Amino acid sequence: MAPISTTKTGQPLDRQTLDSMLRRRLFYTPSFELYGGVSGLYDYGPPGCALQANIVDMWRKHFVLEEDMLEVDCTMLTPHEVLKTSGHVEKFADWMCKDPKTGEIFRADHLVEEVLEARLKGDKEARGLKVDREDDADAKKKKKKVKDIKALRLDDAVVKEYEEVLAKIDNYGGDELGSLIQKYNIKNPTTGGDLLSPVAFNLMFQTSIGPSGGMAGYLRPETAQGQFLTFQKLLEFNQQSMPFASASIGKSFRNEISPRAGLMRVREFLMAEIEHFVDPEGGKAHPRFDEVKDIELTLLNREVQLEGKTDVEKMSIGKAVSTGLVDNETLGYFLARIQLFLKKLGVDQSKVRFRQHMANEMAHYAADCWDAELLTSYGWVECVGCADRSAYDLTVHANRTGAPLVVRETRSEPLRIEEWQVDLNKKKFGPKFKKDGKAVEAAVEALTQEQRESLAAGLKKDGKIAIDVPGVGNGKVELEKDILEIVKRTRVENIREYTPNVIEPSFGIGRILYSLIEHVYWSRPGDEARGVLSFPPPVAPTKVLLVPLSTNPEFSKLVRRISHKLRGLGISNRIDDTSASIGKRYARNDELGTPLGVTADFQSLKDGSFTLRDRDTMKQVRASEEEIIAAIKSLSEGTETWEDVAKRLPEFLEQQVD
Amino acid sequence: MAPISTTKTGQPLDRQTLDSMLRRRLFYTPSFELYGGVSGLYDYGPPGCALQANIVDMWRKHFVLEEDMLEVDCTMLTPHEVLKTSGHVEKFADWMCKDPKTGEIFRADHLVEEVLEARLKGDKEARGLKVDREDDADAKKKKKKVKDIKALRLDDAVVKEYEEVLAKIDNYGGDELGSLIQKYNIKNPTTGGDLLSPVAFNLMFQTSIGPSGGMAGYLRPETAQGQFLTFQKLLEFNQQSMPFASASIGKSFRNEISPRAGLMRVREFLMAEIEHFVDPEGGKAHPRFDEVKDIELTLLNREVQLEGKTDVEKMSIGKAVSTGLVDNETLGYFLARIQLFLKKLGVDQSKVRFRQHMANEMAHYAADCWDAELLTSYGWVECVGCADRSAYDLTVHANRTGAPLVVRETRSEPLRIEEWQVDLNKKKFGPKFKKDGKAVEAAVEALTQEQRESLAAGLKKDGKIAIDVPGVGNGKVELEKDILEIVKRTRVENIREYTPNVIEPSFGIGRILYSLIEHVYWSRPGDEARGVLSFPPPVAPTKVLLVPLSTNPEFSKLVRRISHKLRGLGISNRIDDTSASIGKRYARNDELGTPLGVTADFQSLKDGSFTLRDRDTMKQVRASEEEIIAAIKSLSEGTETWEDVAKRLPEFLEQQVD
Repeated sequence: MAPISTTKTGQPLDRQTLDSMLRRRLFYTPSFELYGGVSGLYDYGPPGCALQANIVDMWRKHFVLEEDMLEVDCTMLTPHEVLKTSGHVEKFADWMCKDPKTGEIFRADHLVEEVLEARLKGDKEARGLKVDREDDADAKKKKKKVKDIKALRLDDAVVKEYEEVLAKIDNYGGDELGSLIQKYNIKNPTTGGDLLSPVAFNLMFQTSIGPSGGMAGYLRPETAQGQFLTFQKLLEFNQQSMPFASASIGKSFRNEISPRAGLMRVREFLMAEIEHFVDPEGGKAHPRFDEVKDIELTLLNREVQLEGKTDVEKMSIGKAVSTGLVDNETLGYFLARIQLFLKKLGVDQSKVRFRQHMANEMAHYAADCWDAELLTSYGWVECVGCADRSAYDLTVHANRTGAPLVVRETRSEPLRIEEWQVDLNKKKFGPKFKKDGKAVEAAVEALTQEQRESLAAGLKKDGKIAIDVPGVGNGKVELEKDILEIVKRTRVENIREYTPNVIEPSFGIGRILYSLIEHVYWSRPGDEARGVLSFPPPVAPTKVLLVPLSTNPEFSKLVRRISHKLRGLGISNRIDDTSASIGKRYARNDELGTPLGVTADFQSLKDGSFTLRDRDTMKQVRASEEEIIAAIKSLSEGTETWEDVAKRLPEFLEQQVD
Repeated sequence: MAPISTTKTGQPLDRQTLDSMLRRRLFYTPSFELYGGVSGLYDYGPPGCALQANIVDMWRKHFVLEEDMLEVDCTMLTPHEVLKTSGHVEKFADWMCKDPKTGEIFRADHLVEEVLEARLKGDKEARGLKVDREDDADAKKKKKKVKDIKALRLDDAVVKEYEEVLAKIDNYGGDELGSLIQKYNIKNPTTGGDLLSPVAFNLMFQTSIGPSGGMAGYLRPETAQGQFLTFQKLLEFNQQSMPFASASIGKSFRNEISPRAGLMRVREFLMAEIEHFVDPEGGKAHPRFDEVKDIELTLLNREVQLEGKTDVEKMSIGKAVSTGLVDNETLGYFLARIQLFLKKLGVDQSKVRFRQHMANEMAHYAADCWDAELLTSYGWVECVGCADRSAYDLTVHANRTGAPLVVRETRSEPLRIEEWQVDLNKKKFGPKFKKDGKAVEAAVEALTQEQRESLAAGLKKDGKIAIDVPGVGNGKVELEKDILEIVKRTRVENIREYTPNVIEPSFGIGRILYSLIEHVYWSRPGDEARGVLSFPPPVAPTKVLLVPLSTNPEFSKLVRRISHKLRGLGISNRIDDTSASIGKRYARNDELGTPLGVTADFQSLKDGSFTLRDRDTMKQVRASEEEIIAAIKSLSEGTETWEDVAKRLPEFLEQQVD
């Protein structure tokens, strides 16, 4: 059922081996391990930290710099009122079930998923089909709730039903999950005990701001709200010109019910979010859509999923937009740009798909949403969400605060509107209604065009009209023609005022980072224990390993000189002058994903030339110091590939590398 | 009293004008303004965000890359237990006084400071001396507690006393602040009401991790703890080689009692921290100290402050270390490196001093501490702290968790130790003491060398000895010579085990950013309303402004081409093709601190040459597109100055710029 994940070279991926390598090389480790750890929190060590910085740097260049986006840095601490308005206080929640006897808490959808998957596995086994045993051992490591699988054959109809439920597991609300738990008799997997009905658990971390404890606040669940609240200022900064995008890179927080799956579901994570503000009129066109329209994407649409299937379709984004599968050009433009970004990072293009959200699955603010999902050993994982948030956020904040979160633009042609207008005779109106004046005036202002038209006729006919004003007198107020007139006039509007819609590509940097690692991981044939991480050079944590051939101090001097020069160019490098063999030293750096190696040997002393080695092919070239440094620079910046360099510089074969 | 702050060109600095410019240009703004704001929280807009990123980038190159530091990224969420061990739960607090009638809360030290300063001002006024009236208006803006100053003459002795109290205001604890409040009859400045005694208010934001609410946690108050907890793994990653440093850049949080002074005292802030781990033996020498020993620093030492004075002394760091004023080479090395970093950023060197902490002022973990303070309109502000945390943190975490947070190194010469050893005859020992055996054995093991020596003599003489074992029998236990021997032997130790000491340079990026802005701010003579921010090009938010001379579409094409090329080189630039005059467009960019301007004019169409303009001198050169781009690159990277470029390329005078 679950797709099998593979290494870069197509071998089955052994996550346990990879995990242990990543920990050994300090890409990341569980936080607070000395104190027993806290699930869902991870620290990045030096290679992970550098990898993360390079991904962020590339993101900034690909999106922010390329499209002149306005980057902002807003606070994580957010007062209650803001997140109440945005809907997060009420709706940003997962469903949890408690076992009242043991006090254990389960995330309802994950529990249903795991139990049904386990039963399907048991069914397979009962039918004599091969079941992945390794997965079971793995399940225990991952602290899966369901640890034992019973070989028990199910009815064909039940199997089909389970599969359909699993395909749309993200589409269920609390009541539905409760019904599924009842219907399929799902219990606490460890004790068999009954569970209480699912209740909503808000995923925001709460705190209190200031010394008096009076101001409730949360850690932001997304960077977006800060950007929305700055909209007006950004529009001003952008000299009132539309469309434009803001962007933000920073940590967000979600108090996951039971984090699992390593970096894939964590409680504190780095996000990079874009809020692209666009005029909703004219179909949300994008001026640069033409540049990307022929890019092919792998799409999994909503209808297919609701049928309980996961069949994808390959299609150019141009066609996807023109057929209405993807709602508009701006959304389509960003889907294509996301694909290009992932490609640049080194993500395996055959392991990318764009999945449309089902209706109930969408966040409360979204009108449409496509996730870029990457295939990993954890299955298909959402790494980038691309939502059309419509005018939702700007509207709710404007309504709550009274701030005009709108664009005002001069119409090229003034708009002429025929309308019924009400003129009050203020001199008589005030004295007549006294303290009720405001309420009556508001009721008059609120009359629709249709009402006004018919009241105008009534006024002409009877010389007076009656309108509803709740709370004043008996709820009806009579108005005579000396106190108001209703006339049809033409109003000319020179300014158009509108609330922009927002297209939001939102990147989970940690998930991308981990998925990328799985995609570039492989091991050399015949040496399975020795892992290689084939990061493209611009993404690699360290670009160059510098090795003196032996402990000869003359070699050491040379590599120190090169190191100093590379540092001056901002190219990260590491000297390994330990006494380990060159082969061992390169192996260590294979695991760190260092793409290049420079060796100083006897010939270097003689003629000042050095060898440059490619991690992936293990081939070497030999050239002068200057040429080697130039090659390193262009490779690190991604302006040349190893093939280019190997064509230019003479190959080197002699040096013994064990 | 308070030093007068000046602009880059030595004019008095008008903070109100500067503040309004910074807000207008969206460097930063109060967060959640639409919701009334939350004090102590600020958002960075595009220029502030870019400035911050450039400072961080320069920091990373100056410290991390230059010294091969191991950068890590640890979580902000931190469990209670970790911060309890580190001492923060108990001691990371400020003193606050409550007015029981109004419920108002005051930070005790700030209140004493403000009241005494106001009285000193009143005294000055009563003596007919000039008092800065602008300051008063400013005080209201800054929401100072003390709003009105009464002209009231004080005794000379009282003036002296107040001045001395103010000079060591950071040195007082809660009891002392309480006494000062009593002694000087300090009340709620608004109502005149009595205040309760100062109580400690913990400055950490508290939250709860996980769905059951069972795990208490905090937002970290510093990045350091994550680094200490990773120490063992980092040492391993560094192939057991000492000394080394870890580094971390990230947000930290302090729930300030009453934040004020803009970016200077905020509740959420970006820090960059280094933890340099060093062998405490041999005086904490630093291998590269020689490179910095002649650098002159302005020092304000502890003794001067305790005398109630603030006189500084200029001294080379070499001399400061050799005379013992600065405790050790590693601390001194970093002080000098901090000064170099600040200089590179563009900080005014005459507005930097290093102030030593007084004993009571130091954080609970520190053995010595020097702050790099920058002079601003808020007075001298701590921007970098450089503390010797000794072995405090590693020791407390090791004691609490049992993890060996130590360095083990092979001694070059084995250490031979003559010592008295106790040999127990286990066969007789066990049966004799039974359940008390453990206690007796522990008491024997705990005997000092002196005790062992004298007991050995006693055993030889009497054939038995008595030792204290609390809780066993009557507290004395008798041991005969058949049950133990005490002999002098030579023990050979090949491994040395020690807990490293930590030198911690800790940078408040927001404070540095704001101080830098004040230091580079000035206005052109005769045009005071028009501000200029003379950031050095590598730090400037945007490097180049591109302006077509007029709205001629041919000019626009040219600047778009240059913009595209610059973007390819990673150089941030902005096109301004509005119809405003060139002068106006340059003025806008003066305020944004954009150092360079390129104009496309009629000659550009003819011969492909462009003009390049320097923000500070307003001088221009003219050269080919290629040369102009090369000059922009070297200026942005800081490898050339404008003087260099102006020497190389021909000056251009003709173009009319109003």
